Amino acid sequence: MKAYNKMLDISKELRNIQRTIYLLAWDERTYMPEGGVKGRSEMRGTMSQIHHRRLTSDKTKKVIEDLSSKIDSLDDIQAASLREMKREFERKYLVPDELINRIAKAASEGQAVWEKAREKSDFDMFLPNLKNNVELRKEYTEYIDYENEPYDALLDIYDPGSTTKWVEKVFKPMKKKLSRIVDKIEKSDIVPGKGVFDGNHFSTSRQHSLCRELAEDIGFDFESGRIDEAVHPFTIGMDYDVRITNRYDETNLSSLYSLMHEAGHGMYEQGIDTELYGTPIGRYISMGFHESQSRLWENFVGRSLPFVEYMYPSLQKEFPDLRCYDAKDFYNAINRVKPSYIRVEADEVTYNLHIALRFDIELGLFRDEIEPEECEVVWQNKMEDYLGISPDDPALGVLQDIHWAGTDFGYFPSYALGNLYAAQLYDTIEDEISSLEDLISEGEFSPLLDWLQDNIYRHGRRYLAPKMLKKLTSEDLSDEYLIDHIKDKYSKIYGISL
Amino acid sequence: MKAYNKMLDISKELRNIQRTIYLLAWDERTYMPEGGVKGRSEMRGTMSQIHHRRLTSDKTKKVIEDLSSKIDSLDDIQAASLREMKREFERKYLVPDELINRIAKAASEGQAVWEKAREKSDFDMFLPNLKNNVELRKEYTEYIDYENEPYDALLDIYDPGSTTKWVEKVFKPMKKKLSRIVDKIEKSDIVPGKGVFDGNHFSTSRQHSLCRELAEDIGFDFESGRIDEAVHPFTIGMDYDVRITNRYDETNLSSLYSLMHEAGHGMYEQGIDTELYGTPIGRYISMGFHESQSRLWENFVGRSLPFVEYMYPSLQKEFPDLRCYDAKDFYNAINRVKPSYIRVEADEVTYNLHIALRFDIELGLFRDEIEPEECEVVWQNKMEDYLGISPDDPALGVLQDIHWAGTDFGYFPSYALGNLYAAQLYDTIEDEISSLEDLISEGEFSPLLDWLQDNIYRHGRRYLAPKMLKKLTSEDLSDEYLIDHIKDKYSKIYGISL
Repeated sequence: MKAYNKMLDISKELRNIQRTIYLLAWDERTYMPEGGVKGRSEMRGTMSQIHHRRLTSDKTKKVIEDLSSKIDSLDDIQAASLREMKREFERKYLVPDELINRIAKAASEGQAVWEKAREKSDFDMFLPNLKNNVELRKEYTEYIDYENEPYDALLDIYDPGSTTKWVEKVFKPMKKKLSRIVDKIEKSDIVPGKGVFDGNHFSTSRQHSLCRELAEDIGFDFESGRIDEAVHPFTIGMDYDVRITNRYDETNLSSLYSLMHEAGHGMYEQGIDTELYGTPIGRYISMGFHESQSRLWENFVGRSLPFVEYMYPSLQKEFPDLRCYDAKDFYNAINRVKPSYIRVEADEVTYNLHIALRFDIELGLFRDEIEPEECEVVWQNKMEDYLGISPDDPALGVLQDIHWAGTDFGYFPSYALGNLYAAQLYDTIEDEISSLEDLISEGEFSPLLDWLQDNIYRHGRRYLAPKMLKKLTSEDLSDEYLIDHIKDKYSKIYGISL
Repeated sequence: MKAYNKMLDISKELRNIQRTIYLLAWDERTYMPEGGVKGRSEMRGTMSQIHHRRLTSDKTKKVIEDLSSKIDSLDDIQAASLREMKREFERKYLVPDELINRIAKAASEGQAVWEKAREKSDFDMFLPNLKNNVELRKEYTEYIDYENEPYDALLDIYDPGSTTKWVEKVFKPMKKKLSRIVDKIEKSDIVPGKGVFDGNHFSTSRQHSLCRELAEDIGFDFESGRIDEAVHPFTIGMDYDVRITNRYDETNLSSLYSLMHEAGHGMYEQGIDTELYGTPIGRYISMGFHESQSRLWENFVGRSLPFVEYMYPSLQKEFPDLRCYDAKDFYNAINRVKPSYIRVEADEVTYNLHIALRFDIELGLFRDEIEPEECEVVWQNKMEDYLGISPDDPALGVLQDIHWAGTDFGYFPSYALGNLYAAQLYDTIEDEISSLEDLISEGEFSPLLDWLQDNIYRHGRRYLAPKMLKKLTSEDLSDEYLIDHIKDKYSKIYGISL
């Protein structure tokens, strides 16, 4: 079909530019010498411009229009491809270039100011940028054909198909339940796995090789991928070539879990059907779904007792300081719950409360119920409310994340959605793979990987998140599965009823 | 000036695309996982197309025409920039896209067939591709406004400004003189530095760290550069970010000299004035000039006795197997002359004869004096004539290099020009920097680097090779300096009169 192939040609060219932009980013964060910064931002700028020009060209517009007029003759995959091509096109074409440029400029300025403001713990310094960024994103939503309210247009950037209403409906009960659980755990005197990481030392070169083995064991494909080091671990997928990164700290073993997290992202990317490469649906479903795959491997597999039992003999062999602790001690230690100020350091129980707080504030800003100047105080109050702690220092509060500085409102919910999707999916998987826990404790990960591959990875973006979740779990998004998982797991660890 | 700035905008965009293509190539040859090959060639293809479309666009044409009409108002640098922009534009614009595509296709097919033919030592297998490639390049030259003969159009791709006549005039006497010198050396019974590398072992991890120190000592800037490993060492310059590569063999110390070679290329790239970055002259003068800088550091500095004296204490410290040899033994060993079949393994004396042979054949092909089917035999005869040896196996002869398979006729002379330029420049430098040998033996390289920086590197492509050489050495290209250098050096090493 000619019109469809024309669209694919454009899509493939765009994908090649996108892959190239990913490589520029990977290199910038792994091997680029310091002096390369200036040149690299020029290169990135040129490549983004080229991508934008191509995506929003009259030719692209015409091809989409032509194909849209023949929609009845398209099969499912073709129709999904057109849907995604159109989404990407409209998100850029309908918004004036002039506004896109203003947003890009505001994002880069915002990030520069934010960095300084955070350093100085000075929210007022960042406030003008926050105000400006909110205004620009409000202006942006005016050009988008959103579902019910402006914030939908922002959510859709990161988690296509989900709406504010859909998210809110689940976040509301979730935060109450989580908050109650945290409260109970906080009252407990138990410190799980006491001593395991206290003053002990873990050779980073051994962490390196263990992480590599772990990645191989769970199924990350080194024929089409690699691991490197980066200050902030990340994953990039260039279809045939998927790269994860990790960091190592000799005082603990968090590298094992960032490895599981990034390998989860990486295996998702590697699992997309090669037939879909370069098509508009040859990519992950959404940021939330991507996060669900990293969290599934990190938390539901990695932080489970069967997994620790599989891995612990290797750890004891490599790290002499672990020899006086058993697998259960280690399991307890890596599952300690502790309300803390910083989202990226949060445990499985408190994490979604950090997100709920940000979601509340973003929603308030875009529903004109919260003013930017109120953010610092609202943050403090909500932290107190959800987690029972409150930071005086804005660097530990409202200034801790880069997202708002970069105009990326609507991104945060993906993280919590990832945890919710993961819990809901894992519940189904446990029903469908018999003796999954036994398999995991024996280091047999291929049944799980095959399931994910077959049911999720290979389909790319054929189905959007809400539909995919329902298709696989026969239910709409619910907080039940995450809450049940947490109650079940942590009541045992803390020996209390949750 | 508006018209000039318009040209610079285009030039900068093209340069950013070019830098990006370089990064793709660097990554492909250093860190890319095996499975990435397919995706990478798609990415390269898209990027080259984008570069081509931009370079040959009507906009570029108009900007060049506009600026050309105002040539009298341009200063030297602006005029040189226009000259180079025009050269690059015409080389692509005047040649039909259809022919460029046929050449690209023939190059990629030619290289695939060549690889197999070389493996099987089967010249006839490669012959149809060789014929086709010669025909295509002849067709190509028809579109180029060359100086005197078609081969000029090919030379100009790699060494702008030089002509067949100019090169031939020097190569002719050079090859006779070199051949005579080789003949005399071959009759000598002396084996310089006997034993130094025989059966000895050199830890590759120590070679790694020594090479890094060496690069730092001579002045390669790691703030704006790095060293990695690659099977075939190469250098790429992305202006602010210049990367060299090296390989290590535990049976010898050739890594030190490939390091010097690549660092020579790298320091040249790093020395270009940042003000010129992104302009049409913000690049090296020519392939020949680039090679002169690598050869200058590798051969004229690196393989000199003062340099060995500076470096040898570190070598003895790192490699116990060297402790029963002195610096002079080592110097002799790394300067052994031995006619051999393979160009890339050739020593300083025989190297240019390998090139003269290829130049003769290329000229014969493009002057219709040699037919492609005769190449194998002509090669054998000329090897016998110049070097006194002749390969029965075409894999060691006419099939050894990739250049013709890739349609890159006209490239080879650059290598010999590099050696000639280096000798001629070094002679001037020795006059202008007092006690250069003493400085080198003390590890004081900055006077030399400063001279190169000030007189060559920083100017980018402001002057073309013949003019630059004359400007610096007050003479036209000559074989005298290389011949004198060789006679002087090797008569001492072999204890004979040359």
